[in-house]
Amino acid sequence: MRIAVLGAGRIGTIHGLNVAASPAARLVAVADPHRPAAEKLARMTRAEVRDVDDAIEGPDVDAVIIGTPTTTHADFIERAARAGKAIFCEKPVDLSSERIAACLEVVEKAGVPLMIGFNRRFDPNFAELRRRLVEGVAGEVEMVTVISRDPAPPPASYVASSGGIFRDMMIHDFDMTRFLLGGDEVVEVHAIGSALVDPAIGQAGDADTAAVLMKTARGRICQISNSRRASYGYDQRIEVHGSKGMLRAGNIHRSTVEIATGAGFLADPVQDFFLQRYADAYREELAAFLSHIRSGTPPAPSGRDGLLAQRLADAATASWQAGTPVRV
Amino acid sequence: MRIAVLGAGRIGTIHGLNVAASPAARLVAVADPHRPAAEKLARMTRAEVRDVDDAIEGPDVDAVIIGTPTTTHADFIERAARAGKAIFCEKPVDLSSERIAACLEVVEKAGVPLMIGFNRRFDPNFAELRRRLVEGVAGEVEMVTVISRDPAPPPASYVASSGGIFRDMMIHDFDMTRFLLGGDEVVEVHAIGSALVDPAIGQAGDADTAAVLMKTARGRICQISNSRRASYGYDQRIEVHGSKGMLRAGNIHRSTVEIATGAGFLADPVQDFFLQRYADAYREELAAFLSHIRSGTPPAPSGRDGLLAQRLADAATASWQAGTPVRV
Amino acid sequence: MRIAVLGAGRIGTIHGLNVAASPAARLVAVADPHRPAAEKLARMTRAEVRDVDDAIEGPDVDAVIIGTPTTTHADFIERAARAGKAIFCEKPVDLSSERIAACLEVVEKAGVPLMIGFNRRFDPNFAELRRRLVEGVAGEVEMVTVISRDPAPPPASYVASSGGIFRDMMIHDFDMTRFLLGGDEVVEVHAIGSALVDPAIGQAGDADTAAVLMKTARGRICQISNSRRASYGYDQRIEVHGSKGMLRAGNIHRSTVEIATGAGFLADPVQDFFLQRYADAYREELAAFLSHIRSGTPPAPSGRDGLLAQRLADAATASWQAGTPVRV
Amino acid sequence: MRIAVLGAGRIGTIHGLNVAASPAARLVAVADPHRPAAEKLARMTRAEVRDVDDAIEGPDVDAVIIGTPTTTHADFIERAARAGKAIFCEKPVDLSSERIAACLEVVEKAGVPLMIGFNRRFDPNFAELRRRLVEGVAGEVEMVTVISRDPAPPPASYVASSGGIFRDMMIHDFDMTRFLLGGDEVVEVHAIGSALVDPAIGQAGDADTAAVLMKTARGRICQISNSRRASYGYDQRIEVHGSKGMLRAGNIHRSTVEIATGAGFLADPVQDFFLQRYADAYREELAAFLSHIRSGTPPAPSGRDGLLAQRLADAATASWQAGTPVRV
Repeated sequence: MRIAVLGAGRIGTIHGLNVAASPAARLVAVADPHRPAAEKLARMTRAEVRDVDDAIEGPDVDAVIIGTPTTTHADFIERAARAGKAIFCEKPVDLSSERIAACLEVVEKAGVPLMIGFNRRFDPNFAELRRRLVEGVAGEVEMVTVISRDPAPPPASYVASSGGIFRDMMIHDFDMTRFLLGGDEVVEVHAIGSALVDPAIGQAGDADTAAVLMKTARGRICQISNSRRASYGYDQRIEVHGSKGMLRAGNIHRSTVEIATGAGFLADPVQDFFLQRYADAYREELAAFLSHIRSGTPPAPSGRDGLLAQRLADAATASWQAGTPVRV
Repeated sequence: MRIAVLGAGRIGTIHGLNVAASPAARLVAVADPHRPAAEKLARMTRAEVRDVDDAIEGPDVDAVIIGTPTTTHADFIERAARAGKAIFCEKPVDLSSERIAACLEVVEKAGVPLMIGFNRRFDPNFAELRRRLVEGVAGEVEMVTVISRDPAPPPASYVASSGGIFRDMMIHDFDMTRFLLGGDEVVEVHAIGSALVDPAIGQAGDADTAAVLMKTARGRICQISNSRRASYGYDQRIEVHGSKGMLRAGNIHRSTVEIATGAGFLADPVQDFFLQRYADAYREELAAFLSHIRSGTPPAPSGRDGLLAQRLADAATASWQAGTPVRV
Repeated sequence: MRIAVLGAGRIGTIHGLNVAASPAARLVAVADPHRPAAEKLARMTRAEVRDVDDAIEGPDVDAVIIGTPTTTHADFIERAARAGKAIFCEKPVDLSSERIAACLEVVEKAGVPLMIGFNRRFDPNFAELRRRLVEGVAGEVEMVTVISRDPAPPPASYVASSGGIFRDMMIHDFDMTRFLLGGDEVVEVHAIGSALVDPAIGQAGDADTAAVLMKTARGRICQISNSRRASYGYDQRIEVHGSKGMLRAGNIHRSTVEIATGAGFLADPVQDFFLQRYADAYREELAAFLSHIRSGTPPAPSGRDGLLAQRLADAATASWQAGTPVRV
Repeated sequence: MRIAVLGAGRIGTIHGLNVAASPAARLVAVADPHRPAAEKLARMTRAEVRDVDDAIEGPDVDAVIIGTPTTTHADFIERAARAGKAIFCEKPVDLSSERIAACLEVVEKAGVPLMIGFNRRFDPNFAELRRRLVEGVAGEVEMVTVISRDPAPPPASYVASSGGIFRDMMIHDFDMTRFLLGGDEVVEVHAIGSALVDPAIGQAGDADTAAVLMKTARGRICQISNSRRASYGYDQRIEVHGSKGMLRAGNIHRSTVEIATGAGFLADPVQDFFLQRYADAYREELAAFLSHIRSGTPPAPSGRDGLLAQRLADAATASWQAGTPVRV
């Protein structure tokens, strides 16, 4: 599988390095309007620097991985689809659900595979939790609880163009909730948000502390909470309560060292950088993408998964602004 | 301190035995319309069996502990107040907030101390969590998360007269949330509920799986979830996320034994009976009541705490029924 | 069952209070040469103060609980045996194994039941561990590891008359090891000891940090380590490694509260007072004693268990002094 | 840094891949008498296959990594030393301490750096434990406890040529103990061993379950226990008890998933393959080796560390066979 990576920033670099290290793929091209970034990644991976057009349309490219800024995603997806390439795109396809829907139509017409980068589905812990859920050890799902807290808030300037906490941060948790509900879709979302961490985030019209309460078609209950700041690391937890038992998966501490003194038993903070926390997830995600292309099975999470998570984020944003639950 | 206990059922017996074992009090009378129950408790505690009137009004009684069915609470409180007795009453004072308010007026007029039995405030773990919260180790509170799950659902017949899951079960969590928020009261409640555990509970007009999302006057966010059934024991957890850190307190396993085999590391289920889980809490609660009376300080949780928790339960019930958030 | 308690110090008081609180027994007499101590315990338990002779020989006494200083144990056991009383004696019967053996002969001749106070066998956690071991979940025992650390060292003056760390402290671990080995007795003991905590303990001829390595008749391996000081509480752990799995049981933290900050996740120290840590164990121990007397079954741990643990302590002491393993 | 790897088996492959992935080194040659193995590793790393002589002596080789069978180590070290190469050699240098000492003299005369592959020193958890120990959070070390259990026993045929459990398996724990004691060397070793896991191991003259009790020059106490089989994974634990506190580091579970049911709370087994458990350690070890060569600092663990650990293994073997403690 010959791959081009668009975007040589933090996330594009991760994907580029993973492609280069994969025995099942070869990184042929890197494109980034910021040339030094592209060159740096190309050097590390022995790939070629190209401009975006050549990277997308090159006849030696089988698949395109899109790690550019969000505003470019839908356009690049459409161009890659028309060029007949398999596509992996970082979430979200777009901040507008309408734009996403239009883009997915182009993809569908082109008949190319599209996978969306909800990396957490591939985290070994969360994937294992879901595997056991599907096996049935917890019985029928009754409640899903997701807690996600970033180690530190982004600058307020970032927030302004991020689409807001529900689309920028909680969208991962919406996707995770859908992943765990196994087809029983959320029909109602009620959101609350506050700017408790950084007043500047509030002034930018966003929240930094938020929670949603959701109900599915079959009456299951989902709770998600987000904070833009956790002093003790990058907090990523999932709990599913079912008729036969409770499943949970959680954080990874920086080490297993524990020190016991008169003050108590002190364990390490949890890993606080998402690229470290989810390093395995990114590798597994790429492997899944390659495997889907090779086998011809439809990629998951699909473009439609991207759209449905986005609709939940839209609903949450609307609910937060209106102060009432929103039907989906 | 000479005490009369009204009600010799499960909870009255706990209080009666704790009074009898306390060096700071003496159990003088036990009253229960079911005479054999009263006699049994009296025998265990060397107390006297009386009818309710004598128990409440006896000149040798300083304080009355009310552990009778809910429907009798307000009436007994008023009678004890008029008799000038200190009063401890199990939650709730009544299923109707109006009735509670009227009852509290009688108590206030009588000038007697009244304490409400929100036992969880006295659980050593939760009390310790709050002590540290007040000390400031977690900084400013931003989110409060409470998870409470009963080991097994009550019969649907009980449910019918219970006031519903929000008034019967979640009321403890409403009080705990208020206890942890330190005066920043909840102003909005949105509730969802489903009957996922036992359809008969749904047919009786109640939910067995429920969650609320709440906002305080200062924008803090609270999440509570309840289930009437947890296969692994009586699940009682609190988590407070603050500006400086996260505090949590949790369950007590049946033992510290762990068995490691090829299947993994298996720890015990958590204690599954509330009288065991909260045995220390009931003792501490009584000690606090006695201490308040002795020192003349106003008891906490007060009658007003009982009323405010009830109003949150009312709001949650109304929200659940209407499908919209309810202002408090 | 009518009980007399000899010794109204710390341990006698525990036993006296437990008898008084037991529905299956009545405390009739308390004896202690230090009269105010006896009076205090008698007051708390509504028992009578007697001198030792009357307490042991009183016709209204069915059983004697001996909680006096070690040097008096063997003598009181023999007197109680000759008086036909059931006997519970705190460990050890004596610091000399020969004296113990002689005493046990008197007991045997008298045909009275004798139980030795190895309280840890009755700790709910360790008892549960053993129950599962006997059930077979861990398969055949291969290694037993016991770690015991006191929160703080005793004064060097105490050490001088204590029989040394192996007889005074590790004897509990020797008994626990025997309890877990189920009849496969230790045949070789090698001990090492140092005075690392308090040089005065070394000057008094004792160690405050010690470990033994032992082998059983069937080749199983046992490791025990002791320290007279642990900054984080009273550390009491057992681990059994078997052919099918590993069983362990451990400490009880002061609360379940955990605080997560940039410094990490801080849990409470473990309980640091043996009377708190083993409060349940003392209650269960008394219940077992009463049950053995009532049912006529031979008490366990027996006088012989006391003797065999003492012989291991003797062997460890000899090994430590000689620097070579000692056969038992 | 241009590297040649000798041996393309399991461990040589690990080192070869790590060199190939390191930005600080280049793998130029792979040598293995089993040609297909060498070719496979060379293919994965784009290195050249050479015979051992060329690999060791090639002018384009700066350093040699020796991952061949133990019997060849000393010879290859000497040849590489004479060729002036930096050397990394898997433990042990030889099963004979005399041979090791002779080999180290050759290395010293040649003046080349030699590092021994005690990988566990580089495990992030154990390295972090030691870092904190050196910082002083635990105060003065009093006891070191190391528990190592393999997931499954090797074939008895392997055992016969392994040098025995103390030289083959416990040698890692001897080195770790020395690493943690910070210069206070062990002066006495007493070992016990049994064949409890597989009688064939006993018939081959070895033990599969073993423990040592050791004393240092300054009176500290060390306990190590080993088993060749643990049903729950590859068990690797260290605990250091000091004057101010206790430090411990432990196992890594396969995932963070936990399932709670009526049976209890089940966590995953621990990782059961040493190459997975110590994957990070091997990377860090290589990085340390490269860094030592680059900076000219003497590598640690040094050849002398290899010799001293071997002498402890010799002493343990002799003690086990003789049944008495052995002075070192």
